[in-house]
Amino acid sequence: MNDEFYMRRALRLARKGEAWVSPNPMVGAVIVKEGRIIGEGYHQMFGGNHAEINAINCASESMKGATIYVSLEPCTHYGKTPPCCECLIAQKPARVVIGTADPNPLVSGKGIDILQRHGIETTVGVLKEECTQLNERFFKFIKTGIPFITLKFAQTIDGRIAAASGHSRWISSDVSLKLAHRLRSSHDAVLIGINTLIQDNPELTVRLVRGRNPLRVIVDSSLRIPIEAQVLKNQAGAKTIIATTKNANPAKVARLKRIGIETLVIGDDTDHHVDLKKLFAELGKRSISSILIEGGSAIITSMLNENLPDRVVIVIAPKILGKGIEAVGDLGINTIDETLRIAYRKVLRKGPDIILDGMVQK
Amino acid sequence: MNDEFYMRRALRLARKGEAWVSPNPMVGAVIVKEGRIIGEGYHQMFGGNHAEINAINCASESMKGATIYVSLEPCTHYGKTPPCCECLIAQKPARVVIGTADPNPLVSGKGIDILQRHGIETTVGVLKEECTQLNERFFKFIKTGIPFITLKFAQTIDGRIAAASGHSRWISSDVSLKLAHRLRSSHDAVLIGINTLIQDNPELTVRLVRGRNPLRVIVDSSLRIPIEAQVLKNQAGAKTIIATTKNANPAKVARLKRIGIETLVIGDDTDHHVDLKKLFAELGKRSISSILIEGGSAIITSMLNENLPDRVVIVIAPKILGKGIEAVGDLGINTIDETLRIAYRKVLRKGPDIILDGMVQK
Repeated sequence: MNDEFYMRRALRLARKGEAWVSPNPMVGAVIVKEGRIIGEGYHQMFGGNHAEINAINCASESMKGATIYVSLEPCTHYGKTPPCCECLIAQKPARVVIGTADPNPLVSGKGIDILQRHGIETTVGVLKEECTQLNERFFKFIKTGIPFITLKFAQTIDGRIAAASGHSRWISSDVSLKLAHRLRSSHDAVLIGINTLIQDNPELTVRLVRGRNPLRVIVDSSLRIPIEAQVLKNQAGAKTIIATTKNANPAKVARLKRIGIETLVIGDDTDHHVDLKKLFAELGKRSISSILIEGGSAIITSMLNENLPDRVVIVIAPKILGKGIEAVGDLGINTIDETLRIAYRKVLRKGPDIILDGMVQK
Repeated sequence: MNDEFYMRRALRLARKGEAWVSPNPMVGAVIVKEGRIIGEGYHQMFGGNHAEINAINCASESMKGATIYVSLEPCTHYGKTPPCCECLIAQKPARVVIGTADPNPLVSGKGIDILQRHGIETTVGVLKEECTQLNERFFKFIKTGIPFITLKFAQTIDGRIAAASGHSRWISSDVSLKLAHRLRSSHDAVLIGINTLIQDNPELTVRLVRGRNPLRVIVDSSLRIPIEAQVLKNQAGAKTIIATTKNANPAKVARLKRIGIETLVIGDDTDHHVDLKKLFAELGKRSISSILIEGGSAIITSMLNENLPDRVVIVIAPKILGKGIEAVGDLGINTIDETLRIAYRKVLRKGPDIILDGMVQK
């Protein structure tokens, strides 16, 4: 068994924390002694033990002389829990194998340094790409303070998200709907535009899978939201924020406040539409590290126009609609060379649908 | 080894004839004696020996008491070659295993009858679905006299086939281009609209793979074709027909005739656009059993509007364009329930592109 084998195991463990650890990263750890796994663990939820500690705690024998595989560089600072490096050093492992260094430039490499100064052999960069991809959301946020943005929509083969009438139920299948809920649970916030809210009146909660409800963000420049909208009800503890502009009616802002809904005024007097970049920066300040954008057409088009999405998840149903509401409107692109490029991570068939999951080339 | 094993081998042989046998079907045959393959063959090109005869001719020993696997019911009539059933009976096989019966209702089952009357055991329907799919083009044509229609286009993820300027080179990759040429070589005709001809001035010949050039059909209701168009040149023996209406300028018709190009007037005085259904019927009369439609937008939309395509092959490039020329225009569909459904046969990744290959549900 080689390093990659155990690191792959650590990665698989790490993923179990997906819907629960944010804004922390997902991390997995595996302890190996004389060719046997003697302990393993992962970061299970925000505020809980880090992966290394869970692995140490469940180890069936002393870790002295063992190798520990951990998908992300062990921390050196006191946060919600004590620094993992200290705990590791006390256990006297012979070797620590690390998937990827900490992305935070202020602490990157510090854990590795400390381990080495205590005579522990370290290897860094085993399955580096996978370990980085796993926490790309966390990494972007740590480095830039701007949430990681996933743009998700379901369309027909010919690129329509609804009939001209606005009718869109259901373009995608039940299986894809489940995927949508899984995406919600793995993002800190879910965002839609007011047109989609008025058309579909969605709850935007996580129901078809287990997981946390994201913060619900409605982009509503003129504060047109109907007071009886589903997202204004307190569903299973899900919170809602309305992003609006100075154009918002103050009486309505007050009324929303009375039912416990915060209204965020984004931008200054010159902004008649919510400036999405400013909104994302503001949400970042509130520890929202990732946002799932669920449409509709106006939001998708603005997002792509400014090249804001990091990742796209596009569900393509095996249907052809013809004229209707197009997913993507005018991007001001005149030649094929200027098109936005998507680098696929995964192309999946889910029931009758095809899922394109990829990164937007910047 | 069971029947399916040998039938699968016969199918694989049959496919080798793809670009060469039309308007005949693809057929493969395998002769098995005491668990050994003693002969095999396939229909290699139109006018040549049928699969059974090629298998008999190359058999390494007598076929007496052997089993012959053939993907399509052996013929009983004199065509370009003598009937296969007669040849088979003379060889005294113990058993004939047939993939699927002849689709022509006038002869279906006759071959099976004759074999049985000569005391040869027959089994029909081994891998029936695969054997039927293999020749679906042929089967539709034999039953209806109307060519099998494949609609093929390359689009961005958001359903555009060109920028608003008409610029479309290249939406898809080199790998997909090769697929396009393979599709051409396996259809009797390739058809485009006059707008695509004027925009792209394609040759519509088979260059990137080995295979026959299809008949080139240009739909040009007002006979606007430029006299210097590539398709009007005699490229590697490729023929061209222009489908037009009574609106066509007779002087231009005459001029085209002088350079060896036939103009087909489709419909009567009331038709200002080429009626595609009537065109297909006319091409069917001329033994064109399959047509590949290569666009553009107007043709794609008319085709789908009348639900004429049997199969679609859609190349999706990993690009987002935004406003441009959409692949599919207005189909008069108002709800998602009314959309055209595609049953995928294959979903492939070819280089950076995704290929959706499916049948249009009727």
